[in-house]
Amino acid sequence: MSQKAFQDYYPDHLSQCYGCGRLNEHGLQIKSFWRGEEAVCTFQPRPYHTAVPGYVYGGLIASVIDCHATGTAAAAAYRAAGREMGSEPAFRFVTASLKVDYLKPTPITTEMQLVARVVEIKGRKVRVAIDLMSGEDLCARGDVVAVQVPEEWGL
Amino acid sequence: MSQKAFQDYYPDHLSQCYGCGRLNEHGLQIKSFWRGEEAVCTFQPRPYHTAVPGYVYGGLIASVIDCHATGTAAAAAYRAAGREMGSEPAFRFVTASLKVDYLKPTPITTEMQLVARVVEIKGRKVRVAIDLMSGEDLCARGDVVAVQVPEEWGL
Repeated sequence: MSQKAFQDYYPDHLSQCYGCGRLNEHGLQIKSFWRGEEAVCTFQPRPYHTAVPGYVYGGLIASVIDCHATGTAAAAAYRAAGREMGSEPAFRFVTASLKVDYLKPTPITTEMQLVARVVEIKGRKVRVAIDLMSGEDLCARGDVVAVQVPEEWGL
Repeated sequence: MSQKAFQDYYPDHLSQCYGCGRLNEHGLQIKSFWRGEEAVCTFQPRPYHTAVPGYVYGGLIASVIDCHATGTAAAAAYRAAGREMGSEPAFRFVTASLKVDYLKPTPITTEMQLVARVVEIKGRKVRVAIDLMSGEDLCARGDVVAVQVPEEWGL
């Protein structure tokens, strides 16, 4: 995809997140994009992201769901406000709660595809539902409540 | 602690998990121990486990909660059966669902302390509740349902 990812709009000092920071060289550097009303993210697990042999460990799945959801929450807040992504004052979100249902083991050799849907925007909260697919298989479902970072954090 | 960690009883071929495998050199290698009726785990985040500056990213918290919970579930199944940890046939658990409530930002420079409590053992399922502390602060709460791995997985 040639469009700019949500995470590429984050300023440098907020681009160090292990999950989604483009400047964290140790991290996952996930990228999220709009596809119509949904937000998508693909991620190829690395060989050491294993759980039991051949499958991805649950923490990676939770991590990618988490960061894809907070990125989607920020993008959705801009959309709802009719504003360009990255314009000031910025919408910044952190996770209030994360729920993951692991439905099937997720193969480590296949790219994971995450499809996020904005369930609700209410005040400072955005709720995002995510399906994690591996090929045709729905392997995990995520339900994330993201909240806008309080001004006193100074981000 | 001089006692053996739950994870140190896992056989070599199941010790590659990124979260808790003692043989995954890239991984977190968490260690869980009984302390009376609770199971404890401490983990020092690394500098690159950042989210926003100074704080731990949510995926690390989810990862450590997840692996501490499945380890605790296995240890609890052995205890409930009155068997020695590591004896055969082995109890192996994977995560069915993971819920994390993020209550406060978790400082990256301070060791995290996780205290797990077995809420219920029912058939092949074990439910584990986890408090994640940083110093005196309760920063996150986890609620995990772990299930015994089906025999057909051949683990």
